Amino acid sequence: MVTNDPSELDLINWIRHHSQELPSSLVKPIGDDCAVFDPQGMSQLAVTTDMLLENVHFHASVSPRFLGGKSLRVNLSDLAAVGASPYACLLSLGLPNQLTQNYFHSFMKGFLEDAACWKVPLIGGDLSRSESVVINVTVWGNFKTGGPIWRSQAQDQDALVLIGEVGFSRLGLEILQVEDSASLAAMTHEDELVDWARDPFRAQCLKAHLLPRPLVEIGTWMSENGAVNAMIDVSDGLCTDLLHLAQESELKAEIRVDQLPVPEKGWGEITALEAALDGGEDYALLAAVSEQQLAHLESTYPPEFPPCRVIGRFSSGDPAVYLNRSGKREKYQPAGFDHFS
Amino acid sequence: MVTNDPSELDLINWIRHHSQELPSSLVKPIGDDCAVFDPQGMSQLAVTTDMLLENVHFHASVSPRFLGGKSLRVNLSDLAAVGASPYACLLSLGLPNQLTQNYFHSFMKGFLEDAACWKVPLIGGDLSRSESVVINVTVWGNFKTGGPIWRSQAQDQDALVLIGEVGFSRLGLEILQVEDSASLAAMTHEDELVDWARDPFRAQCLKAHLLPRPLVEIGTWMSENGAVNAMIDVSDGLCTDLLHLAQESELKAEIRVDQLPVPEKGWGEITALEAALDGGEDYALLAAVSEQQLAHLESTYPPEFPPCRVIGRFSSGDPAVYLNRSGKREKYQPAGFDHFS
Repeated sequence: MVTNDPSELDLINWIRHHSQELPSSLVKPIGDDCAVFDPQGMSQLAVTTDMLLENVHFHASVSPRFLGGKSLRVNLSDLAAVGASPYACLLSLGLPNQLTQNYFHSFMKGFLEDAACWKVPLIGGDLSRSESVVINVTVWGNFKTGGPIWRSQAQDQDALVLIGEVGFSRLGLEILQVEDSASLAAMTHEDELVDWARDPFRAQCLKAHLLPRPLVEIGTWMSENGAVNAMIDVSDGLCTDLLHLAQESELKAEIRVDQLPVPEKGWGEITALEAALDGGEDYALLAAVSEQQLAHLESTYPPEFPPCRVIGRFSSGDPAVYLNRSGKREKYQPAGFDHFS
Repeated sequence: MVTNDPSELDLINWIRHHSQELPSSLVKPIGDDCAVFDPQGMSQLAVTTDMLLENVHFHASVSPRFLGGKSLRVNLSDLAAVGASPYACLLSLGLPNQLTQNYFHSFMKGFLEDAACWKVPLIGGDLSRSESVVINVTVWGNFKTGGPIWRSQAQDQDALVLIGEVGFSRLGLEILQVEDSASLAAMTHEDELVDWARDPFRAQCLKAHLLPRPLVEIGTWMSENGAVNAMIDVSDGLCTDLLHLAQESELKAEIRVDQLPVPEKGWGEITALEAALDGGEDYALLAAVSEQQLAHLESTYPPEFPPCRVIGRFSSGDPAVYLNRSGKREKYQPAGFDHFS
């Protein structure tokens, strides 16, 4: 039923009427004061939470279908960073009165499609009226074999390894900001975005920004294979997140700029290198890898996974990020995404 | 340091520098992409999440110290309703640029004081700039002995039992709305609120609204003693939440109005009975209790716990709420708090 009356909204009933594949350890998936699950078969549980706010993290013109998916994906990226397999999630959603049920349904479709794709059933939540769109997602993950990978375990002389791509998301944002993107609001599928983009480069940028793929499978593979010493996901920007890794591990980190994969070009006033170093929202993974682990990675890393490249090195010293451009080394102050700057 | 620059804010560092008592099952309490804990000793885990938004759930003039506490307490009430013991929590917080570090610190003090009081350490979160204050809290709890109490297990002829008080919170809101409450913004302790209230009745109303006490200990006692068949917490209003209980249990529920404890008077345009039936934010507990359980409750219910009173009965029939006033029975349409009305 299409109506403009949001008082008809009911998150619980909506979820109940959309079948989800539920693990047998879920005792009570939805509809009570709490969801309840039995963790006896789990050795460790990882939890993380992320908030997405209109006008801060996204603009009102973004397709609710894409937004629903992205709000889950950014959380899954945090699970990927510690190597956990998604288990279940909770959603809090605040919607303004002027938004219709269509918006809510489209958002939920995007969310639940991705929840099904990554096998992370939605088991509870909270729905509220709000002044602008407010989203908060909490996800739990567990470890089938292997254990969590921490930011703090990088070792002196570890290689700095980047899995996935950086920079494209920031360029995608730039494209959206300088062009009339009103027609994106009604999109329901990635293919429409690709058509709208008109060329493969722009399509890659827009997909990276609106429909980032969390590297969940790669994270769990890394954990199960003991393939890295430390890991973090790149959400705030390559250099910002590398600084976090360096600080937690009490090491300095150096990026060899000539080894860093950057987009083939920039967009608007953003150069490709700026986007790669400080763009943010890449949801790539950044890892610290010993010589032995690197040899193992080179022989066993699944070819269907995204590229895994050495882009620098950790060494002893005060925690900081250095850029090495053709042998010239300088300390770099990350300009990554800071919600309070 | 007092500064107006919110870019100095750092949730992780702030939490790290405030000692919390952490259970040994916490593998990684804070500072990584995920918090990780070992659930092997836990038979079942209960999880819940709640969002609180400025201008929807609270006004900007509310003391951040009280708000920090309340945002945790309303979630603990959901744990109480299923009988779970608090284990740990996550906080997402969005703050406008114009708010100072003082606001943030005051909020966090209120939050962490209550987290310590109810032994539910904060183990992660997300901090963001926002247009208005946005709070989302996720808590989880476990069951030491006993198991979860569901909404759906009320039985035909069970007594309807109210634990705690209803109506005072709504009257407290009324007091705040009709009086100049600007001076409350700087309050840091309940005693200041009691002084401001001037008389015990007003103090009870204001405390019920601003500093509600979740009935956590009572919930776990109920679970451990198998003392009730079904339970829910009263957050949206007595009759609204009773309707949820009735619907999930597929029974009708009757409140005997002469047995319902109501505040000694109303305030402004709200009568005491209206506040009790539909006020909301009471964080009392509403339970379905068999004859045998009732006899057991009467002999074993700890005298230091809040009052536990029979206020009606469940019976077979289409799910609905009825009010019985001196023998005259009528179907009642709850007018409780609906964020979308």
